[in-house]
Amino acid sequence: MKRIVLGVQYDGKPWLGWQAQPHGQTVQDKLEFALKAIADAPIKVSCAGRTDAGVHALEQVVHFDTDIDRPLTSWVRGVNAHLPDSIAVRWSSEIIQPADSEQDFHSRYSATARTYHYVLYNHSVRSPILSGRAGWVFRPLDEQKMLEAAQYLLGEHDFSSFRATSCQAKSPVKQMYSISIVRQGNLIFCTLKASAFLHHMVRNIVGSLIVVGVGNQPPEWMREVLLTCDRSIAAPTFMPDGLYLAKVDYHPKWNLPQQVTTDNWFA
Amino acid sequence: MKRIVLGVQYDGKPWLGWQAQPHGQTVQDKLEFALKAIADAPIKVSCAGRTDAGVHALEQVVHFDTDIDRPLTSWVRGVNAHLPDSIAVRWSSEIIQPADSEQDFHSRYSATARTYHYVLYNHSVRSPILSGRAGWVFRPLDEQKMLEAAQYLLGEHDFSSFRATSCQAKSPVKQMYSISIVRQGNLIFCTLKASAFLHHMVRNIVGSLIVVGVGNQPPEWMREVLLTCDRSIAAPTFMPDGLYLAKVDYHPKWNLPQQVTTDNWFA
Repeated sequence: MKRIVLGVQYDGKPWLGWQAQPHGQTVQDKLEFALKAIADAPIKVSCAGRTDAGVHALEQVVHFDTDIDRPLTSWVRGVNAHLPDSIAVRWSSEIIQPADSEQDFHSRYSATARTYHYVLYNHSVRSPILSGRAGWVFRPLDEQKMLEAAQYLLGEHDFSSFRATSCQAKSPVKQMYSISIVRQGNLIFCTLKASAFLHHMVRNIVGSLIVVGVGNQPPEWMREVLLTCDRSIAAPTFMPDGLYLAKVDYHPKWNLPQQVTTDNWFA
Repeated sequence: MKRIVLGVQYDGKPWLGWQAQPHGQTVQDKLEFALKAIADAPIKVSCAGRTDAGVHALEQVVHFDTDIDRPLTSWVRGVNAHLPDSIAVRWSSEIIQPADSEQDFHSRYSATARTYHYVLYNHSVRSPILSGRAGWVFRPLDEQKMLEAAQYLLGEHDFSSFRATSCQAKSPVKQMYSISIVRQGNLIFCTLKASAFLHHMVRNIVGSLIVVGVGNQPPEWMREVLLTCDRSIAAPTFMPDGLYLAKVDYHPKWNLPQQVTTDNWFA
């Protein structure tokens, strides 16, 4: 039995999220359908982070086990021939168990960090070119104040204030490694890196950063929101359009051919 | 009677081009439908440059005449409420005839130059995020050689080698003001500015630049292609996905609130 790992990119707009559903209109359904066509057998995949409806991934990491012998390129080019334009496998790798490793590689449990981008379009009029690709804020945003507010989130915290009621995580305590907020013209790129994220956590944080950015609350308000551990205090969940799962980090011993650098929106 | 000018942005992917058709699935059809809803009367628009199916516009310029009194913002926000996500009016302006002007403003005939971007995605695997937004070239491109080849196109030339048979222009002679070709990671931005473009001219030029970029022809071949004035010599028309009408230039006397700067893909 071999463990194969894939880097998968998708435009989330046409899909009802990552996780397989009976209606079949999800990224996992489409990927498993395409893998089956190459493997001539049903394949069940696991992923690093299940994304919601409308959320994109620059490099989702997925693994599955199979007895079938295929050249690694078949899991890329072959599978892509069976996928819609909005989904593609970007690379494949076979896990060779390192000598010092007690545990098998697992796309979710072996991940040491996740990085998400949230792209904001800050303009008085909506942009058709960025429709579904960026969250639109028509009031002027002060990205310096947003960055100031974001500092309160760094480090280990109970992020219950930014947690959806549907969240299935065992603990609301996560480690936020970094948050960068950079303006390029009318675009604002928010990049968050943490040990893991709760359900809706990035969209809830971005919603609250916007409250600060438009001037409705001072940056210190973010500290208050965090400390109350009360979801009803933070801003409503912001639209999925601008959210991208950018990068999942693993120990170098797994030797994955990951391609995404988080400096750029598109690698 | 007032002459109103609009800046219009659209994602061309869902539409069968600019020009109105009986089936109604064009950008002009959707825009005229939305304008009618605001004006309570049929409105017929003219544009600076008719784009083909799948071709985008960052700032198409459109004008129409009307007797109806509406605040200028109605031609933006009001009209946008009746447009799909993939089309939006970005600004509106009423033409005040300058004292020194003998001719009325016309979106097409008053234009002094047009700028198009062609965005190439140069990677061995296709990108779902850029699907419909960039032309995919999987063989490595040498952008320096492409830039060298492009120099032969600068100045006034007969561009018949890059002209579609369907082209209705009176003359194949156009003035190419500038071509820039810049790589940013896996993206290559080709920006062409000319007095006007023949039908399919940018896509035919880009197709030929790719022939040079992958090394199938030397840069000097572009000169040969240009001088033969024979469409069968140049490369086939490249896909519409990466083509954006970026900017239309007018005399400053018309005082249009144009927003797009051609330095950026998205203003």
